[in-house]
Amino acid sequence: MIIVQKYGGSSVATSDKMKAVASRVAEAAKKADVVVVVSAMGDTTDELISLAKQLNPMPDGREMDKLLATGEQASSALMALALHALGKGAVSLTGGQAGIITEKAPGKARIRKIDARRIKQELDSGKVVVVAGFQGITDNVSSADITTLGRGGSDTTAVALAAALSAKSCEIYTDVDGVFTADPRVERNARKLDTITYEEMLELAGQGARVMHSRAVEVGELYGVEILVANSTKNAPGTLIKKEDSNMEIRNPVRGIAHDTDIARLTVMGVPDRPGIAYQIFHSLSEANISVDVIVQNVSDAGITDLSFTVNNADLDKCKQRLSPVIKTIGARDLISDCTVAKISIVGSGIRSHPGYADRMFGALAEEDINIVSITTSEIRITCLIDKEKIKQAIRTLHKAFELEKV
Amino acid sequence: MIIVQKYGGSSVATSDKMKAVASRVAEAAKKADVVVVVSAMGDTTDELISLAKQLNPMPDGREMDKLLATGEQASSALMALALHALGKGAVSLTGGQAGIITEKAPGKARIRKIDARRIKQELDSGKVVVVAGFQGITDNVSSADITTLGRGGSDTTAVALAAALSAKSCEIYTDVDGVFTADPRVERNARKLDTITYEEMLELAGQGARVMHSRAVEVGELYGVEILVANSTKNAPGTLIKKEDSNMEIRNPVRGIAHDTDIARLTVMGVPDRPGIAYQIFHSLSEANISVDVIVQNVSDAGITDLSFTVNNADLDKCKQRLSPVIKTIGARDLISDCTVAKISIVGSGIRSHPGYADRMFGALAEEDINIVSITTSEIRITCLIDKEKIKQAIRTLHKAFELEKV
Repeated sequence: MIIVQKYGGSSVATSDKMKAVASRVAEAAKKADVVVVVSAMGDTTDELISLAKQLNPMPDGREMDKLLATGEQASSALMALALHALGKGAVSLTGGQAGIITEKAPGKARIRKIDARRIKQELDSGKVVVVAGFQGITDNVSSADITTLGRGGSDTTAVALAAALSAKSCEIYTDVDGVFTADPRVERNARKLDTITYEEMLELAGQGARVMHSRAVEVGELYGVEILVANSTKNAPGTLIKKEDSNMEIRNPVRGIAHDTDIARLTVMGVPDRPGIAYQIFHSLSEANISVDVIVQNVSDAGITDLSFTVNNADLDKCKQRLSPVIKTIGARDLISDCTVAKISIVGSGIRSHPGYADRMFGALAEEDINIVSITTSEIRITCLIDKEKIKQAIRTLHKAFELEKV
Repeated sequence: MIIVQKYGGSSVATSDKMKAVASRVAEAAKKADVVVVVSAMGDTTDELISLAKQLNPMPDGREMDKLLATGEQASSALMALALHALGKGAVSLTGGQAGIITEKAPGKARIRKIDARRIKQELDSGKVVVVAGFQGITDNVSSADITTLGRGGSDTTAVALAAALSAKSCEIYTDVDGVFTADPRVERNARKLDTITYEEMLELAGQGARVMHSRAVEVGELYGVEILVANSTKNAPGTLIKKEDSNMEIRNPVRGIAHDTDIARLTVMGVPDRPGIAYQIFHSLSEANISVDVIVQNVSDAGITDLSFTVNNADLDKCKQRLSPVIKTIGARDLISDCTVAKISIVGSGIRSHPGYADRMFGALAEEDINIVSITTSEIRITCLIDKEKIKQAIRTLHKAFELEKV
């Protein structure tokens, strides 16, 4: 029986924290073969990025991957040493040594395949295998290039290894207790969920819940790996991310509220209402790797319309730069931005089969005199754009309206 | 035309120093294909060792190698980024990517072979190749283990690459101007040597001159690679380490004075004078990787003798631990240690063919009333053990006696 455990950077930030994690791993290794995936210690990655930018403001992707991969390589070796100190056999492997073969896409390489022979061989010899997260290699020869998997990469490493090894479980240890019905720092009645579906988790992650990165969840869904998210410093059950099952039908159809205040709303004013215009606008943004959400286009008035959407605050300047020539090309009047808005969403796979949830959401917000700027929906999510100043009030109102304190 | 340049940790300790080195490299790259070997930045290696020891006082060699190799991996990527910032194409390679295949001997792996195909391919595409020093890999597959080459490892990487690439020159840049006739901090008339033979350099290095590690010089001698040692912050010619040539015959037969105050003298008292006793003593030390020098055995008196030798101060405690059971086994009386001695040596390939140098050395020391505790010699070196307090006086006396200020 194999289990995969992943510990994030804050869980291994100091030698004392690393020793504490090693104890947990050694305990787990009494009952199963354990593969541990570790992130770089604390702020190591940020420090390396800062050092690189001192030397080169536009650092090359391949060299950055090689540089950043050292963080996880070091923490994996240190974790193996901490396990040895507890008398537990352990061996650390880089992404390449662990057989994680990726595309040649610096900074965001996707895993092509995993050749798990070396991991299996080390497990068979009774060792804990510590794998450097977030990284891979472009081929199975020593001259191949080192790659990194991008944001959430160590989570992805863990889930992909769990799939390749047919592991019994994949446990992501972090500094929160699991997935909550809402941010517990805002809504004190927020309840930890025992289970959540992949789909729901993806919607929550996409809408601002920062527990786990979408990509790892997608890999989990694709290969049917159940993912446990739990606190690395507690012995508490956490939240299990899994596929929908029949038991889930009798629970609250709304599972959680996500919010994101770190957004800006852009409006392209006076857009000629012709085919291909939206493509020109959004293609220029996707080329720059800018994610866009809550797109709303007004009804055309005399062949002229306004087009609004939201982006992450960090992308706002890049977005304006990108759009300024496009605005001219398409003959739009102006581009304006607004940083006073926030997104709030209700998510739950029950929303699909229960009509009327949108009504209830809008009604609850209206009762609190919270104006809705825009609305978007997916099958299992309803998202409203509201005044950023009213976001906490909105979270508490909706938590109550959908009785999320109840199972 | 290929040249190999190596920059040590102090030369790349900060981003500013790294930029300065990048400028030198870019300048050299205008005239030749350049392979740069870099050490880890500043104290990185010591910091990683300290972190490891916090987790495990007796860290496993394989994991240490994997941990320490990150230092050079990071500095090589950063150097490539610094070169890019100057508009110079560059690619960094780990030891493994550079094709440096070693034994499986953690912490002190010797290079088995170098598969330079990737380096040549990158050079052919017009790039500077930055190789992480001090490291290799046990095989040419990505699952192979990372190894380190031990002390002086980056120098060895540079010389071995120069040999494998049939480079025109191998330049070791450091924080001194080259090899001197004596330590210039002690003897202000000390003169930088323009050339020195491999053999002389090995004797100087073995006797305390810290400019270059013996191992890299041995590799240079074996493959006939001429090694230039020069200052990384100056445009000065440095010292060229090469094989003896006819011009060297007309120079001063003594080339330099080495000294080492960081030693301890051990005496095994009352040793039964039987075959195999010396083997038992020195075998126990070589097993513990302790280097021994200046071995002197007194004339036997009634089948009992005393045996003296020197070790590095850092090895003194380990040495005593190792010898304490041996003393009992062989029936010796006692083991005493003395930390008040120092070694001083004159080195020069001319010593071999010029008798009388020992006389001159002993006479010069006697004139200054410096007592000689022990003497050892090689073909091209004479070493005396003297009172540590008189070491500076001895250096100055011998420098004058052998007219080392003259070419």
